[in-house]
Amino acid sequence: MTTTILYPGKDGAGVIRRTVLPGGLRVVTETMPTVRSVAVGMWVGIGSRDEAPEHMGATHFLEHLLFKGTSTRDAMEISASIEGIGGEINAFTAKEYTCYYARVLDEDLPLAIDVLADVVTSSLITPEDVESERGVILEEIAMHDDDPSDVVHEQFSAELYGDTPIGRPILGNEESINALSRDRIHEYYQRYYLPPLTVVSVAGNVNHERVVELVAAAYERAGALAQLAPPAPPRLDGPGVEQRSGIRVVDRPTEQANLVLGTTGVSRGDDRRFALGVLNAALGGGMSSRLFQEIREKRGLAYSAYSYTSQYADTGQFGIYVGCLPSKIDDVLKICRDELSRIVAEGITAEEITRGKGQMRGGLVLGLEDTGSRMSRIGKSELVYEELMSVDEVLARIEAVTPEDVSAVAQDILTRPLTLAVIGPYADKDFSGAIA
Amino acid sequence: MTTTILYPGKDGAGVIRRTVLPGGLRVVTETMPTVRSVAVGMWVGIGSRDEAPEHMGATHFLEHLLFKGTSTRDAMEISASIEGIGGEINAFTAKEYTCYYARVLDEDLPLAIDVLADVVTSSLITPEDVESERGVILEEIAMHDDDPSDVVHEQFSAELYGDTPIGRPILGNEESINALSRDRIHEYYQRYYLPPLTVVSVAGNVNHERVVELVAAAYERAGALAQLAPPAPPRLDGPGVEQRSGIRVVDRPTEQANLVLGTTGVSRGDDRRFALGVLNAALGGGMSSRLFQEIREKRGLAYSAYSYTSQYADTGQFGIYVGCLPSKIDDVLKICRDELSRIVAEGITAEEITRGKGQMRGGLVLGLEDTGSRMSRIGKSELVYEELMSVDEVLARIEAVTPEDVSAVAQDILTRPLTLAVIGPYADKDFSGAIA
Repeated sequence: MTTTILYPGKDGAGVIRRTVLPGGLRVVTETMPTVRSVAVGMWVGIGSRDEAPEHMGATHFLEHLLFKGTSTRDAMEISASIEGIGGEINAFTAKEYTCYYARVLDEDLPLAIDVLADVVTSSLITPEDVESERGVILEEIAMHDDDPSDVVHEQFSAELYGDTPIGRPILGNEESINALSRDRIHEYYQRYYLPPLTVVSVAGNVNHERVVELVAAAYERAGALAQLAPPAPPRLDGPGVEQRSGIRVVDRPTEQANLVLGTTGVSRGDDRRFALGVLNAALGGGMSSRLFQEIREKRGLAYSAYSYTSQYADTGQFGIYVGCLPSKIDDVLKICRDELSRIVAEGITAEEITRGKGQMRGGLVLGLEDTGSRMSRIGKSELVYEELMSVDEVLARIEAVTPEDVSAVAQDILTRPLTLAVIGPYADKDFSGAIA
Repeated sequence: MTTTILYPGKDGAGVIRRTVLPGGLRVVTETMPTVRSVAVGMWVGIGSRDEAPEHMGATHFLEHLLFKGTSTRDAMEISASIEGIGGEINAFTAKEYTCYYARVLDEDLPLAIDVLADVVTSSLITPEDVESERGVILEEIAMHDDDPSDVVHEQFSAELYGDTPIGRPILGNEESINALSRDRIHEYYQRYYLPPLTVVSVAGNVNHERVVELVAAAYERAGALAQLAPPAPPRLDGPGVEQRSGIRVVDRPTEQANLVLGTTGVSRGDDRRFALGVLNAALGGGMSSRLFQEIREKRGLAYSAYSYTSQYADTGQFGIYVGCLPSKIDDVLKICRDELSRIVAEGITAEEITRGKGQMRGGLVLGLEDTGSRMSRIGKSELVYEELMSVDEVLARIEAVTPEDVSAVAQDILTRPLTLAVIGPYADKDFSGAIA
């Protein structure tokens, strides 16, 4: 059992430490001595992209089932134990990982670790719970389907990545959920919920050694550290994706049309992600961005208009989202295309680079004042990156971005074939001009 | 100019101070010496319920227009000045107040105060900006209309309060927005955006005297403190509401039905709000609540099921929200009605009271770690309550709630006539049994 100080912090705050337990379970903590709360996350390196096509939605289904009961707690005891002390407990499933987390007062840290570890290691997944929770998942799918902005993002991913694991919806669909058996889900649990694939991250007013002790005790009680193993390496690569281009239109009688126009971006380990971040800020990252100014401030064509980037192990996304009245969509698409072309031809201004860096810097610093976001940053980093960067290192990487870096990444990404997803009252409309 | 220490804090943190400037402008601050950021809010005591019926949506329209330009900054300069330093600036309109806020690094406090004060005191509201922003507001209305959970809450308010100022939608509707003239909106600005109706609240790593200096300087530059006046009294009362009961069904082909079932609650100054909070926690405040357990955990009938309370000067709401497949709505409504009856007949258990208090306590403490929520708490309190309570006082009030208090408030509130709003594929369905 070795403990490493990954980052020495400043004035006793922000110290990041890492310990690897015998079973390959990693514990990372960050000290925030002036807060009263603590956030605990248990990150498992399994996501929806690890599912076979016929098991679509199994990872997320499993995430729900873990809260239904363990050998020592039923569903009510799991939630009541944390809620009764004023804490919160929840989970989410992503394409490449699943996270269970709780936020409690610092004195309640032992309970939070105990409950989360119980859920992650000792869930029963009874056939009755599977049947009852199947209804909940179908409700969740229906809820998302009623939200046009959710639908358009999912359709965009599906069109961009085609029928591949990373292109499929995390929740699955009605058919796949109805087809999933208890045994299949249980098999995923047994195969993937193992210490080498798990990272426990804790941020707040905590002592690292005490956290390690508590985690080790909870996992040992569950018999989960018996097998010696090293941690699994981070997910640094994948099958890659074929560069596609396509249009997907969902005809629905909404008041607003919702669109995503974009293409593949950079992968998580790509050094150009910082330059792409600056580019994204300038194009559509805030109220002072080109898209917001052109579409909303000058023309009044939309309420919400922004661009975004996302990263995975072997690919990424770069997209523009706009919600506008159906009659305005041609104007909006033209502005989007024009701004993309203008950036490819001319790059962005020195002022935009300065502002983009300021935005990224501020977003990072202001976004990391609470325990939950610090816990997420270190937990996710430990799981999916080769090295856990300190905030100062990230700030230095942002600062180092040059105009040439931004132009280079724009020349690459913004010239790729485009994909468009639209939801709105468009039974017959031809959008082929928008991506040609 | 007098400065009062409203709360002495602990160990130099959490000190709350209040200063009244000559024009009646109030400045309240709370010190959080260990954070790097600062949140600034400017709260104006005017909301949508102050609108004449024919000006529905004017307050919110005005809130948008304030960002379009002042005598010294255009829209781009307003957003770029804050975003370029990594901050955020935004606003929201409620039924009884409007808030403009920014969050920046502490060293940028002077800029944040300057920009916000500029927007609040010196906006131009040009006819061109009104026309362009009218399109944005119509887009925002369309966006909300596409979200069934937004629609159902708004329809519930409209049915519960009828055609009264507090029952009307904050955004207005297409017709009212198209009818609003520049002069009408400008008149609201001149009549209500005055120092006696304004509270500036700041939380973070700040010095109170310095904040007061900066605010005074910014308002004086705008000539806004010339007229001597005392602060306006808080909005402690209103016309009250008639207790109604009704059903409103919006027939729409959604995947899920969305419903709100509820009645009037308690007003903001009602001492029973703490007991109602405990009751609400037990009924539908979290995953361990009765509604969540019955509807989701045991029966798998919904993904989202919760109860809520809200308070205004002279009334309040107590409601239950559920999103479920259309075929499940009768089962869901029956469970809701049964739980309400059971609580009226039997009260809630000692365990539920303990857990409910824990939930309220934890939610309060964990929810107040960031500068934004501290700023909101003190700003809103100063504007709408007679006295600004410290967090410790609020905690003491929660702790003091007795089982008798909970039973008494349940006997009153949960026996009132019910109102139901539903959105879903129900052209002919008769819901009258659900509230009978």
